[in-house]
Amino acid sequence: MNILFCSVGRRCELLKDFRKTLGDKVRIVVTDNSPYAPALAFSDMSYKVPLITDENYIPMILDICKKEKINAITTLIDPEISILADHRAEFEALGVEVLAPYKETADLCFDKYEMFKYLSEKGVRTVKTYGTFEDFDKDYKEGKISLPVFVKPRTGSGSVGARRVESYELLKEVMERSPELIIQELMTGKDMDADLYVDTVSGEVIAIFSKKKISTTIGGANKTISFKDEKLFEFVKDAMKVFKFNGPLDMDLFFQNGEYYLSEINPRFGGAYLHAYGAGVDFPSFIYRNVMEKEANKQQIGQYNENVVMMMYDSVVIDTLDNLQERMKEV
Amino acid sequence: MNILFCSVGRRCELLKDFRKTLGDKVRIVVTDNSPYAPALAFSDMSYKVPLITDENYIPMILDICKKEKINAITTLIDPEISILADHRAEFEALGVEVLAPYKETADLCFDKYEMFKYLSEKGVRTVKTYGTFEDFDKDYKEGKISLPVFVKPRTGSGSVGARRVESYELLKEVMERSPELIIQELMTGKDMDADLYVDTVSGEVIAIFSKKKISTTIGGANKTISFKDEKLFEFVKDAMKVFKFNGPLDMDLFFQNGEYYLSEINPRFGGAYLHAYGAGVDFPSFIYRNVMEKEANKQQIGQYNENVVMMMYDSVVIDTLDNLQERMKEV
Repeated sequence: MNILFCSVGRRCELLKDFRKTLGDKVRIVVTDNSPYAPALAFSDMSYKVPLITDENYIPMILDICKKEKINAITTLIDPEISILADHRAEFEALGVEVLAPYKETADLCFDKYEMFKYLSEKGVRTVKTYGTFEDFDKDYKEGKISLPVFVKPRTGSGSVGARRVESYELLKEVMERSPELIIQELMTGKDMDADLYVDTVSGEVIAIFSKKKISTTIGGANKTISFKDEKLFEFVKDAMKVFKFNGPLDMDLFFQNGEYYLSEINPRFGGAYLHAYGAGVDFPSFIYRNVMEKEANKQQIGQYNENVVMMMYDSVVIDTLDNLQERMKEV
Repeated sequence: MNILFCSVGRRCELLKDFRKTLGDKVRIVVTDNSPYAPALAFSDMSYKVPLITDENYIPMILDICKKEKINAITTLIDPEISILADHRAEFEALGVEVLAPYKETADLCFDKYEMFKYLSEKGVRTVKTYGTFEDFDKDYKEGKISLPVFVKPRTGSGSVGARRVESYELLKEVMERSPELIIQELMTGKDMDADLYVDTVSGEVIAIFSKKKISTTIGGANKTISFKDEKLFEFVKDAMKVFKFNGPLDMDLFFQNGEYYLSEINPRFGGAYLHAYGAGVDFPSFIYRNVMEKEANKQQIGQYNENVVMMMYDSVVIDTLDNLQERMKEV
């Protein structure tokens, strides 16, 4: 299988996981804008490409697909997901499976307010969200929402730019100054997340791996532990019915007052997918079966062990500047 | 060589470097307060210890030294450095080399204002520092310092709590509210750092490895490149004459208007020592020669290549909760 990881950046361990599962059955081709992306070191071939906003970007990616006889393509950064989805037909015409959601779903994942409206309409529990201060104010005066609240950029990634706002006056001021923000109910429950694989042949979610943070008094960051809960699996499966994903995704959830709430979906390999892989939930093998064998994977939701712990640490790639500058190919 | 790394935390790659150089000539013993410290996975033996402030802490570390026939001890966290220095005699009585500075030097490194006064007295160029708003105000009114300035905790690590302050009124208010802060001149030059090894037999600095950040437009964090400059080496060697270090340390510098300025010293393995190791500056071999062969190392300052690049990425340790809980020994 020839797979193309676009905007590969620092995702070294993800590439190592593909190699571990597939050995020489996979040829790993990657792109990045920078010769300093550490993950280049774990690829079989790397291409230097312009910014994803460049008009030549997609033509170059299509050229790489032809030249490298790519079977499947995915991206590791959020802003590129909709771009791949927009060009699905062109990739499919070259026989390339696009491991990214279909367009409508990709667009929803990108816009948190549209996502809220869509989920509410479909009856999927989610975090109460307002697109403007006026909308918030109406509910606030009717006692339907209280302070503090959370504000975050309508279209950003993860928690970048997210913050808690305590007072009415400050919220008003903040929203006037930054109309790109949305207002969300402050969730006080536990946050957790799930890595999912949506089979590209059957369209069904076939694997769900859920994990939560470990609270430790010291150095508590970036430590997670696997758990299983049928209620979570049912909630996630129901939520999946209203979308058209294709391949890996990462879903953020809250658990509050005995119920799950969908917070956000990142429709790509999540940054901590490594945990799922280490617990035996092997997305590379699912992709291989879908893409190379053209077969659906069997549903295996919850087939992993609870209490598997992942602890992150800093690793490094070291090489000479000359090697880095010569390594990447131009398209 | 039996080496004890106290408070080992996330320093997995450092332990791997020791193993790479020394193979089965080293037995790596580690301590931590938490069973979730990922570096435990790369040790030969790990002990669970209380917080470093616990009255039983040092007696327990001494017990481990006896039990494991430790030849050398070091710590990977700043607040523990002075504690090891305070108990040097007790460790030495057990035949343990303490890879930490002698007491006066350890205390200076911990207190940025005392360090400033000491360096100024000794004629080593450093960043202008004030311990109180009153001291700053006097110089400000005489035109000897201008705004903006930097404030940071007098005794903290690295850049934790450091921030730029633009206005006189705000600075006054900030310093009244937080008397633990110091005020520093805002340095506009390039910042860089050097990993040093001070030979424990000869007392001389025998290796200096200097690196600076790489500016990249995208994902520029945690990428450094090696460089060499005789002027830097001379500056660092001169500065070393006024201290009594013992083993590895990391020095932060500024280069401004053609001159180097000493900013801070962390007298332990720096978080990015991995870069020096990857470029062939092999502290584990220096330690082995000092501790096991009781010989001084030859001075080899600048014996590495320029333009060696280090790029960081996230790696993980994955294990079951049961294994983690059973792995650490109690003293």
